[in-house]
Amino acid sequence: MDARTYIAENRDEFVAALKEWLAIPSISAAPDHHADVHRSARWLTEHLTATGFPTVEIWETGGLPAVFAEWPAADPQAPTVVIYGHHDVQPVDPVEAWRTEPFAPVEEGDRLIGRGASDDKGQVLFHTLGLRAGMAASGATAPPVTVKLLVEGEEESGSPHFAELLRKHRDRLACDIVVISDTTMWAADTPSMCVGMRGMTDCEISLHGPEVDLHSGSFGGAVPNPLQAMADLLSGLHDADGRITVPGFYDDVVEISAEERELIARLPFDEAEWLRTASSTATAGEAGYSTLERIWVRPTAEINGMWGGHTGAGSKTIVPRSAHAKVSFRLVPGQEPLRVQEDVHAYVEAHTPPGLSAEVRFAGPGVRACASDIHSTAVRAARNAMSTAFGTEVLFTREGGSGPEADIADILDAPLVFVAVGLDDDRIHAPNEKVEVPLLLKGAESVAYLWDELGRSTTT
Amino acid sequence: MDARTYIAENRDEFVAALKEWLAIPSISAAPDHHADVHRSARWLTEHLTATGFPTVEIWETGGLPAVFAEWPAADPQAPTVVIYGHHDVQPVDPVEAWRTEPFAPVEEGDRLIGRGASDDKGQVLFHTLGLRAGMAASGATAPPVTVKLLVEGEEESGSPHFAELLRKHRDRLACDIVVISDTTMWAADTPSMCVGMRGMTDCEISLHGPEVDLHSGSFGGAVPNPLQAMADLLSGLHDADGRITVPGFYDDVVEISAEERELIARLPFDEAEWLRTASSTATAGEAGYSTLERIWVRPTAEINGMWGGHTGAGSKTIVPRSAHAKVSFRLVPGQEPLRVQEDVHAYVEAHTPPGLSAEVRFAGPGVRACASDIHSTAVRAARNAMSTAFGTEVLFTREGGSGPEADIADILDAPLVFVAVGLDDDRIHAPNEKVEVPLLLKGAESVAYLWDELGRSTTT
Ligand SMILES: [Zn+2]
Ligand SMILES: [Zn+2]
Repeated sequence: MDARTYIAENRDEFVAALKEWLAIPSISAAPDHHADVHRSARWLTEHLTATGFPTVEIWETGGLPAVFAEWPAADPQAPTVVIYGHHDVQPVDPVEAWRTEPFAPVEEGDRLIGRGASDDKGQVLFHTLGLRAGMAASGATAPPVTVKLLVEGEEESGSPHFAELLRKHRDRLACDIVVISDTTMWAADTPSMCVGMRGMTDCEISLHGPEVDLHSGSFGGAVPNPLQAMADLLSGLHDADGRITVPGFYDDVVEISAEERELIARLPFDEAEWLRTASSTATAGEAGYSTLERIWVRPTAEINGMWGGHTGAGSKTIVPRSAHAKVSFRLVPGQEPLRVQEDVHAYVEAHTPPGLSAEVRFAGPGVRACASDIHSTAVRAARNAMSTAFGTEVLFTREGGSGPEADIADILDAPLVFVAVGLDDDRIHAPNEKVEVPLLLKGAESVAYLWDELGRSTTT
Repeated sequence: MDARTYIAENRDEFVAALKEWLAIPSISAAPDHHADVHRSARWLTEHLTATGFPTVEIWETGGLPAVFAEWPAADPQAPTVVIYGHHDVQPVDPVEAWRTEPFAPVEEGDRLIGRGASDDKGQVLFHTLGLRAGMAASGATAPPVTVKLLVEGEEESGSPHFAELLRKHRDRLACDIVVISDTTMWAADTPSMCVGMRGMTDCEISLHGPEVDLHSGSFGGAVPNPLQAMADLLSGLHDADGRITVPGFYDDVVEISAEERELIARLPFDEAEWLRTASSTATAGEAGYSTLERIWVRPTAEINGMWGGHTGAGSKTIVPRSAHAKVSFRLVPGQEPLRVQEDVHAYVEAHTPPGLSAEVRFAGPGVRACASDIHSTAVRAARNAMSTAFGTEVLFTREGGSGPEADIADILDAPLVFVAVGLDDDRIHAPNEKVEVPLLLKGAESVAYLWDELGRSTTT
């Protein structure tokens, strides 16, 4: 029986299992659901044991548990793959906006609706189906590669203990490739692979002036105004071409290749539709780059919030005592968050006028960007596998956001490959999350082919 | 008996009357004190009647009452003077910061402590003493000029009905000169006359972008950010020389004369001390002007408040949907607030990038600046009178703030003269307000000489 047939025959059983798992409200951000996150981890261990994994463990952290499972290849020379996903889910507020109960998953035709269906339980679970399908097709009793599954329980809470967990278990997680199944494809009829995510570091900038708010009638025009200085400082962050002016900011940026730019340009991007999604009426950004390049492969400086002085009703003609802004920097491969933080500190110091004092506090060490080499064996194999499963060419995309993926690649010292079948309209992190079941099955089929190809590529 | 002797002999009676008046908590901004404002008006009418004014009236407004009194000169050809002051007072919060009860006035040596002592009851009341002193000196039974006293009851609440009152009674308020007694002198040992006040108009600017806050990972760098646009717009308000860039803003500005600049430069200004008062560590402002010029005779654009996006704790990496700022413009003689409002509207429109929409709302019609011609008969007479009373040269100052004075000059079509003896350290609008009684007596003496000089200057 080929993999596709096996998957089709086991569709209903797969969906039934996923519905069971989705019924567990494993919201990591809600303390009153932490018991459910533990329950979700236990459900997964049972499912993995039933799938055939000889090793299945719950890995406790300082917070909520991850699940680890390992199934060695028959051939000890076969490569080792770590699959990353997460079993915790987003909160469900506003719950009244859900058409169905968030934790009572329902099927509507090919769709399965419920919190976590796409992000990320559905995408974790297609791996067990794909693994069984591949083995059914080959008749083997062990997978063609050593499969290690690591399913985190705190991803939707910022993965606070994940790097520590990776470091602690670095030896057991040793691998040749990391497969991430927690992202999206371009569209149901345009399968694609993510080959990079931006990094991020964010800070709060404060400028302090007079000890108290001053009457602008008595002092206005003769002492520095912290809000004016903040406006100047933030306005100066970009030049007329939309490039960031912080000295050194672009020094380490690895520019993407002409080939990748050409591949991005081939995506059937409808800018008008994208603007509707952004509920915006015009694009803007760095000169010389397309919208997709601006959100995927270019670093940014974004003002997330700003405040100071009188913000209530009516007038209060003051020179305010202080001004504040929150600014986040999206980073691209090559940029070190700590280096960027130093450069931003220096920029703020250099742009603080006499009479004001500045303070810059970064929220944490930041997150590095990550990218896959599109010419690597792993990416080529995954792209072939997905092309075979979907029956069409697979394009490359990136993600503008940031996740723990860079940590995984760094700590495990292995290349990343994104194999994922979510869609942008899956409403992850929003009410009425859904997943397209046929795409989950294509995901299962893709990894069945991928393990087969990776196993053959090394053993022959 | 000369005026000075009369004033010295009547000092205690004067202070006793003022203490009576100060005991009435006529806080116009506090609805539960409105009855006290009425009581204060009645007290004043009784005092004016006792002083000898043949006409004393309470003028009701849409809000709190003003008091009007008139005492015609014996000579029908004598000039007519309108004296402006107010009988309402500031609130007393924080009341626990007062060393004495705000409405139980106490004398400490030459000082009288209590809410309204300097602003403005003490300065209204020196007029009745001065009027009696002048008549005692000349032996006349009527003043040498026709004196009309107009004492407002809503000045500390923004004078919402004052312009209307002036227009309604324009005929009865017909005059040759308006004397304002509601400001300060440079210092106890440096008597001075205010010869101008800045005007003001203020607005709230809003920039609207996407309909909702956007995830900066998905959209950051590719759509216009309202906070970034606001920072750009506000940063662009000033050029490198600190001049305001709004086209047309300076078109109608009447520059002050070299003579006035020279007189300002002669004031014993201690910039280090002024900075301490401003709890600031550096001056800033328009290039080519001194600190006093910057706050007195130059127009400004001041950001009073700004807000938008995420302003709470922690990070929220968004492109915010909107940005807001409150901006006030101090104006100088020549500038029409409505013209400035139009220019600011045009500036904001011109600086709103594609994809954002702008909104500018001005708080009201604004207040024009006012200034006295230092070469006018009235100013020269008042300066001579004060010089005689104080026994020293009287310098000129201005006020950086704004009041209803420009309305008075405009509606009554008469030149303004400021005769006032408050000090900057009188703590008006703050706890422990006080007045220096000897300065109030000098104020009384000044107006005794002023009416005399004005009466002689026209009748001879
Ligand atoms: Zn996820
Ligand atoms: Zn006043």
